[in-house]
Order: sequence, then structure tokens, then C-alpha cells
Amino acid sequence: MKKIEHIGIAVRDLAKANALFAALLGREHYKVEEVVSEGVKTSFFEMGESKIELLAATGPDSPIARFLEKRGEGVHHIAFAVDDIRAEMRRLAEAGFQPLQEEPRLGADGKWVAFFHPKTTAGVLIELCQDREEA
Amino acid sequence: MKKIEHIGIAVRDLAKANALFAALLGREHYKVEEVVSEGVKTSFFEMGESKIELLAATGPDSPIARFLEKRGEGVHHIAFAVDDIRAEMRRLAEAGFQPLQEEPRLGADGKWVAFFHPKTTAGVLIELCQDREEA
Repeated sequence: MKKIEHIGIAVRDLAKANALFAALLGREHYKVEEVVSEGVKTSFFEMGESKIELLAATGPDSPIARFLEKRGEGVHHIAFAVDDIRAEMRRLAEAGFQPLQEEPRLGADGKWVAFFHPKTTAGVLIELCQDREEA
Repeated sequence: MKKIEHIGIAVRDLAKANALFAALLGREHYKVEEVVSEGVKTSFFEMGESKIELLAATGPDSPIARFLEKRGEGVHHIAFAVDDIRAEMRRLAEAGFQPLQEEPRLGADGKWVAFFHPKTTAGVLIELCQDREEA
């Protein structure tokens, strides 16, 4: 793991949250992206070598809709940049962390992504991210 | 705001969490620090230009004890590095964010710190951090 790639924050209303975080961070979001397979619409803010990713649900079956219902708005996951996502997935699974999928899948922002269950990581949903070109 | 200074994660048992995050992040924590005034014992892991800070309560009245009781383990706050904490506190208060204190106070890791209420920041407790030498 090289750096915090982004922090994902679940929000109810993406437009309102974009305005709120623009005021908080002192900058506008630089892109909006919908990930149809995940049922989310996302926006991104630059922050040093990392990003803040806002996540809104696009339907009631979205994982973000379920998170909001259970926990309300707040930090949804922490994503770490890795060079070799398959090697990191193996390393973490062997260390006892519980992957949420067998294979990396395509996520937002041109990345290969994989998630690990928060039950094995002190309540924090962990994402690994690898740039798609490198996968 | 310049970068994500750290992500604070509330944990029940600091020794167990240190071992867990060492396995997750592939590195050991580089220091442990108790902040008596806040009722917390913290440990830090380097991660690029940012840090992961684990926070355990030192007593039942600690804000971390109350957080754990209410929410369980998980992300407690996001801290952003700033050059001028008083100027940023003024800017955010004028933008409608609710500060949790009037003046910066001394936090962990040699920083001046100030917090903003999660009710005004999409459920995310926000910390501003300024290196103490610069305050």
C-alpha cells in the first residue's frame, strides 16, 4: 500500500454535498461519475496526493442506500493505492482479512478495485485501488 | 487545506488494533502517544503524505468511549493539514460550519487542532491540524 487513494463518504444528495464540500475544502469537485454496476453516482475533490469521493445512491438497492439507512451520512470506506492488486488481495486474505469478491472489478475513476469486509478491519470498509492501465 | 493529515479510527483495544493494522498496512506503527486532556491513547502509521491514527479510550468519560458505545469501531474523524488554523476556523465558521471550540487546542503529534461538528459536515467529524511550531 502506497498512499490513501481516497476517502469515500456516503451522502444523501450529491448536489447539496458537492456545495457543502466545496465550502469545506475551499475547492470545487473536478468530476462526477456514475458507476452503474455499483448503483452509485460519485464526485471527486482533489486533496494533496489523495481525493475525497462523495457517493450517492442511484436506487434503493444500492449499497450506499443501505448504508445511509443503517448509519446515516458519513465515511463509507478508505481506499489505498496499490501497485499489484492481485498480490495485495492474496496477502490480505492470507493474513485473515475477508475479501468481498474473488477478483478485482472495475470501479470509479479508471481503477481496478477490491473491498475487504469491515468486520475484519476494525469497522472500516477497506478498498484497494490499482490504476487500470497497470492491471 | 493542503492534504489529508490523518484519518482517525476509534478502536477498543489499541494493542490488538496495532497488530491488525500492521498486518493490513504492511508496516508497524511508528509511535504511541497519550493525550491526557482528551482521554485517548493513540498510535500512528505512516501512509504516503498522510497517517492512520488509531484512538483508544483511556477511561469511560473519553469521547472515544462514547463514540464506541454509540457507533462501534470505525472511522472517527478526518484531519486536514492547514497553514493558518485560526484563519481556517474563521473561514469555516463564516461558511456555516459549527466549531466545537473557540480556540485551537494542543492535540496529539505536536499539532494545534480544532474540530467541527459532524452535523454540519455530512456526518464526518472534521479536524484541522497545524504544526505547533507554526502557530
